[in-house]
Amino acid sequence: MQVLNMVRKEFEEQLPFAGKKVVICLHLEAKTAYLAHVIRAGGAEVTVVASNPLSTQDDVVAALVQQGIEAHAWYNATEEEFNHHLQLALDTEPDFIIDDGGDLVSTIHTTRPELLQKVKGGAEETTTGVLRLHSMVRNGVLKFPMIAVNDAQCKYLFDNRYGTGQSVWDGIMRTTNLVVAGKTAVIAGYGWCGKGVALRAKGLGARVIICEVNPIKANEALMDGFEVMPMAEAAKFGDFFITVTGNTDIINKEHFVVMKSGAIMCNAGHFDVEVNVAQLKEIAEGRLVNLAAGDGHPAEVMDMTFALQALSLQYVALNYDKLSAEVYQVNTEIDEKVAMLKLQSLGLSIDKLTEEQVGYLASWSSEEA
Amino acid sequence: MQVLNMVRKEFEEQLPFAGKKVVICLHLEAKTAYLAHVIRAGGAEVTVVASNPLSTQDDVVAALVQQGIEAHAWYNATEEEFNHHLQLALDTEPDFIIDDGGDLVSTIHTTRPELLQKVKGGAEETTTGVLRLHSMVRNGVLKFPMIAVNDAQCKYLFDNRYGTGQSVWDGIMRTTNLVVAGKTAVIAGYGWCGKGVALRAKGLGARVIICEVNPIKANEALMDGFEVMPMAEAAKFGDFFITVTGNTDIINKEHFVVMKSGAIMCNAGHFDVEVNVAQLKEIAEGRLVNLAAGDGHPAEVMDMTFALQALSLQYVALNYDKLSAEVYQVNTEIDEKVAMLKLQSLGLSIDKLTEEQVGYLASWSSEEA
Amino acid sequence: MQVLNMVRKEFEEQLPFAGKKVVICLHLEAKTAYLAHVIRAGGAEVTVVASNPLSTQDDVVAALVQQGIEAHAWYNATEEEFNHHLQLALDTEPDFIIDDGGDLVSTIHTTRPELLQKVKGGAEETTTGVLRLHSMVRNGVLKFPMIAVNDAQCKYLFDNRYGTGQSVWDGIMRTTNLVVAGKTAVIAGYGWCGKGVALRAKGLGARVIICEVNPIKANEALMDGFEVMPMAEAAKFGDFFITVTGNTDIINKEHFVVMKSGAIMCNAGHFDVEVNVAQLKEIAEGRLVNLAAGDGHPAEVMDMTFALQALSLQYVALNYDKLSAEVYQVNTEIDEKVAMLKLQSLGLSIDKLTEEQVGYLASWSSEEA
Amino acid sequence: MQVLNMVRKEFEEQLPFAGKKVVICLHLEAKTAYLAHVIRAGGAEVTVVASNPLSTQDDVVAALVQQGIEAHAWYNATEEEFNHHLQLALDTEPDFIIDDGGDLVSTIHTTRPELLQKVKGGAEETTTGVLRLHSMVRNGVLKFPMIAVNDAQCKYLFDNRYGTGQSVWDGIMRTTNLVVAGKTAVIAGYGWCGKGVALRAKGLGARVIICEVNPIKANEALMDGFEVMPMAEAAKFGDFFITVTGNTDIINKEHFVVMKSGAIMCNAGHFDVEVNVAQLKEIAEGRLVNLAAGDGHPAEVMDMTFALQALSLQYVALNYDKLSAEVYQVNTEIDEKVAMLKLQSLGLSIDKLTEEQVGYLASWSSEEA
Repeated sequence: MQVLNMVRKEFEEQLPFAGKKVVICLHLEAKTAYLAHVIRAGGAEVTVVASNPLSTQDDVVAALVQQGIEAHAWYNATEEEFNHHLQLALDTEPDFIIDDGGDLVSTIHTTRPELLQKVKGGAEETTTGVLRLHSMVRNGVLKFPMIAVNDAQCKYLFDNRYGTGQSVWDGIMRTTNLVVAGKTAVIAGYGWCGKGVALRAKGLGARVIICEVNPIKANEALMDGFEVMPMAEAAKFGDFFITVTGNTDIINKEHFVVMKSGAIMCNAGHFDVEVNVAQLKEIAEGRLVNLAAGDGHPAEVMDMTFALQALSLQYVALNYDKLSAEVYQVNTEIDEKVAMLKLQSLGLSIDKLTEEQVGYLASWSSEEA
Repeated sequence: MQVLNMVRKEFEEQLPFAGKKVVICLHLEAKTAYLAHVIRAGGAEVTVVASNPLSTQDDVVAALVQQGIEAHAWYNATEEEFNHHLQLALDTEPDFIIDDGGDLVSTIHTTRPELLQKVKGGAEETTTGVLRLHSMVRNGVLKFPMIAVNDAQCKYLFDNRYGTGQSVWDGIMRTTNLVVAGKTAVIAGYGWCGKGVALRAKGLGARVIICEVNPIKANEALMDGFEVMPMAEAAKFGDFFITVTGNTDIINKEHFVVMKSGAIMCNAGHFDVEVNVAQLKEIAEGRLVNLAAGDGHPAEVMDMTFALQALSLQYVALNYDKLSAEVYQVNTEIDEKVAMLKLQSLGLSIDKLTEEQVGYLASWSSEEA
Repeated sequence: MQVLNMVRKEFEEQLPFAGKKVVICLHLEAKTAYLAHVIRAGGAEVTVVASNPLSTQDDVVAALVQQGIEAHAWYNATEEEFNHHLQLALDTEPDFIIDDGGDLVSTIHTTRPELLQKVKGGAEETTTGVLRLHSMVRNGVLKFPMIAVNDAQCKYLFDNRYGTGQSVWDGIMRTTNLVVAGKTAVIAGYGWCGKGVALRAKGLGARVIICEVNPIKANEALMDGFEVMPMAEAAKFGDFFITVTGNTDIINKEHFVVMKSGAIMCNAGHFDVEVNVAQLKEIAEGRLVNLAAGDGHPAEVMDMTFALQALSLQYVALNYDKLSAEVYQVNTEIDEKVAMLKLQSLGLSIDKLTEEQVGYLASWSSEEA
Repeated sequence: MQVLNMVRKEFEEQLPFAGKKVVICLHLEAKTAYLAHVIRAGGAEVTVVASNPLSTQDDVVAALVQQGIEAHAWYNATEEEFNHHLQLALDTEPDFIIDDGGDLVSTIHTTRPELLQKVKGGAEETTTGVLRLHSMVRNGVLKFPMIAVNDAQCKYLFDNRYGTGQSVWDGIMRTTNLVVAGKTAVIAGYGWCGKGVALRAKGLGARVIICEVNPIKANEALMDGFEVMPMAEAAKFGDFFITVTGNTDIINKEHFVVMKSGAIMCNAGHFDVEVNVAQLKEIAEGRLVNLAAGDGHPAEVMDMTFALQALSLQYVALNYDKLSAEVYQVNTEIDEKVAMLKLQSLGLSIDKLTEEQVGYLASWSSEEA
């Protein structure tokens, strides 16, 4: 994680979080542990809690504790335990938070109103979490500023599109040992994740069908060479179904009953609500269905995302008194900084605007131009 | 132009421009003439003027005049004649304008300040024009609101990416009769146009090298499977060079001297400033260089763009009293409306959010979710 | 045509056709004229005749005659005139021939049996011609050896696949000015030409459907990510139909009646028999149908093909006494020689087997290996 | 394995191997076990032996023995044990054999000459094995006919190209957890396997460089949009190196020393000779090198290959008295039969030549045509 490493060096010098408390709520694995260390290197007292009990790696938790970072999580925690862990983390009364999916923000607002004064802001990792934050703003509920790291270009271009695009198919291939070429992939949702999953499906030789509710994205899918149709029709053709909508009940009973025997369904969205599993169980007898899951992004993808998290949190730490309780986009400066650090880590250089070119771009009357 | 045709029917019923004057400054060819008729069908008195003397089709001008639409343009007009045409069009004292590249807006502000009261707003077609408008806003110069049609998703996704992507290569193939497969294409600029040109280059079998100044776009090009390097290095490898930066002096003497003999250079940006032709002439002796230009977008691409223009102008006509002198993005409603009309014209249907799904997306606390 | 130029230099030194007569029957344009000069540089007395009256360029014919090469052809010759031209060329009593589509070979066997003694052999350019030659062999009719240049790897990989692949779409784009992205291309035939046309269709953003009669090729199309179905079904979906089967009556009345209005049909096979035009005329009222034709391969593609022709004819000239009346494949040595000349002309070098590696590949017992 | 299953049904009716003994030498896993059962269903007494000790699955061996099929193999056998297993299998004095890599054929010829009378022929699975067989024919050593199953279109198109293409990248992704997009893949060898590996590399977003010794293949790689250069140059650029040449010492010390730190090397050829591991160990200190191996083809790919094996062996059983000691290609009839069975198993139908079309293709004089 070379990009995050460069960020750490800056933090060690500038100590942007000196004397502040930070709660990080993310999938609790080695890459997250490194992010915790980077934030601590910036002067913070850090507490880590799991955003999902099933992805927690107990040895990582143990190591964190041993290295003096408070961590509350264990693999396969019950819902009650999971909520208790969140409460323990919040007992530290954080100044800043990092959230993944919105559970931490939601918990603070619904169960710990006394903390709303103390928490100065934070950053959110996922599409789902950002959607929930926007909903809170619309309902006048959100009480501190949150930065939508998920919407940074360095995040959605690389993590969502290329990371998810590859890891979904990596997961499917390793779980099913099926050839992708010559098969039909039905992809519900043509957002950044969906685009990545579709691109790789095509790259692996599949025929691709896109289901969308947004007409612009539907046209885009069409122009990218994919077929577009409603799920009711697509259900008949698919060998693989991948849902990446962030929405609920995308594939239901009416679709299950017309699917080919042996069809593979795979949810790549954040919550397990896209495939209607309850309805599936009702009818599934003798029909092989495989709920496959990719096993996490490569470190190099999380490298850029976590660098965004760290720098966004620094931005909040330095500017919280000027921010209001809204959802903020990541600064273009931060976005481009992470991109440039990445290029540097690859040993690549790019062109730079000359002074004349900057002037040309800023001119507007024909005489100047 | 089926999308524009559906818009025309709405205009005929609603007459959004009743009693108003409109000046349209675009490439003067048959598709533009149809847009003029659509605006007139909305109740406007329309005057048309060319945005570029070299693309004017004299028979289209003659036909417009015969059909009672004022038109000032002829093919290969001198700069003096071109400016005179703009002045004649402005003599009509327009309420609304459509501009392409920013010359009309610039002319009004610099030579016809008395019109700044009368002009209520307009819409701009190109990246270059929008850049100039933003520059005017930054300098506090712009005096009426302009809508950046260029930045609508329906515009840049289809016109810039797919339209330019195909037409650049169509132009190169027809002008040079060279096979693209197995050759190296150097593309300066990885914006929407550059992405399209690169995608089609790859689709035609070329090796693709991207030159960029923006580190995010440079990373994106890399993840799309392309090589990234500065022009100074790329100049040695290219068989084709395509500039789509909207900036000046992208390819200069220092690059010409290291290029392969027989390299093809092609400017696909709006202005002819990207290749330093003056420097090229200085050194070009016995070296075959071909400045190829694609010959315009298919009607079906302009169909969506001009539908955006027509609906954006309607938006200005209906809301100008609430708008200030800024650059506005096209409304999402208009953008999605054009996309949906396009799908309808193709006979395609897409999924629609159910009430439950809308509710799910709007929920934010875990209980609701 | 750098490859052919290198061949010419060898011919000038070795004069493989010294004192021999050669009739070349090909599309009569500038590239063919250069081939005629190359053969003449090898010592032959050359006569040129058109393989298709519609592709003849009269100025090329005039130039050939002026340069002292006998040429019988004019643009738009009637069938009677066309046959008369063939007879005039055969009056020269050739030793060797180059044919394109099999008409010259067929004419000799059916109308000039007295020449069967004189003609020592030749080379055939096209798939269609090779099919006819194989049919003659099966019927015991062929009386002199013919080399299937069409079947050389340097021919079908480059000319058929990449040449036809690009030129078909170049022709369609320039004739129709339609965007290919987002449309459906139905391609009948998945031979080398069909593969190239399909690859480029995909590269331009189309959805691709393949119609095939050969189950291996049908499976291959499927694994390449295309849909496979019979024409009766595909006819409903296509925006573009391209026939590259070399066979007759691929698209017929039953297909026309279910096609979308505005569908484009394009025959890229050698003979104009793939689309049943007679049936089309019967029913075509108010339905826009466009018979588009690409306008010939780039010189650089024909460079390799004509180098194969020249070297194959040299092979016949040097070995005809050892050959019998069969269809011969192009020698691997010639094929690889042309490929190596091409790489050299591009300034590329490749790896070379070491002595140890040659030994390894030739070993068979595990001790040796 | 639906195709193999259809073959089994035919075998059960026709008993082509009645009273004959067959030795199968393949990777000893579940798919191979099923092939053994299919051959036995054809009337044979079957013995199975491993072609490679490292791929043997001991539970499969145990199951075979329990089901009454003789099997000699265990995981991680020493070379001595491995050779002893081959000898035990040969003690059954087979009539027919199936070999993978040539070890069984080589062992019979070098250590069991008395069997050369008994063995009537067999079939070979791999490129490497076929190369060794051809070498034996050239040296006048091969004493019974062998069918090159590897060279059947249904084999190399699907198994080599699509199977290896996917499984190599599946193996790399799962072993390294690296993103492929944006990295450079150097592929040594552009045969069917190399083509597949390159196609998928491109599909996963990599820049691809091909190293070849054959100029035709080098040109083909170039036209497919890949860069071509010698390994000495490519070694500097690669993030991944995949050798699929079937040859020895492709990557050596001179290449290791110029590679990037962290480069991944992967041999996908049959024998572990392509990367010079001895030289690598000499210099590898602190440099992370990962020798990754994909873990076998999906069942559906082996389905077609093993159907070819079964039908080829049937062909030998029915025709051995007419065959001589040569390497035979798989019959086109068998190849097309397997392809058609595959289409049927997918529920797909394709077009069929009409009588008129068959006639057209068989015609040769213009009158007929």
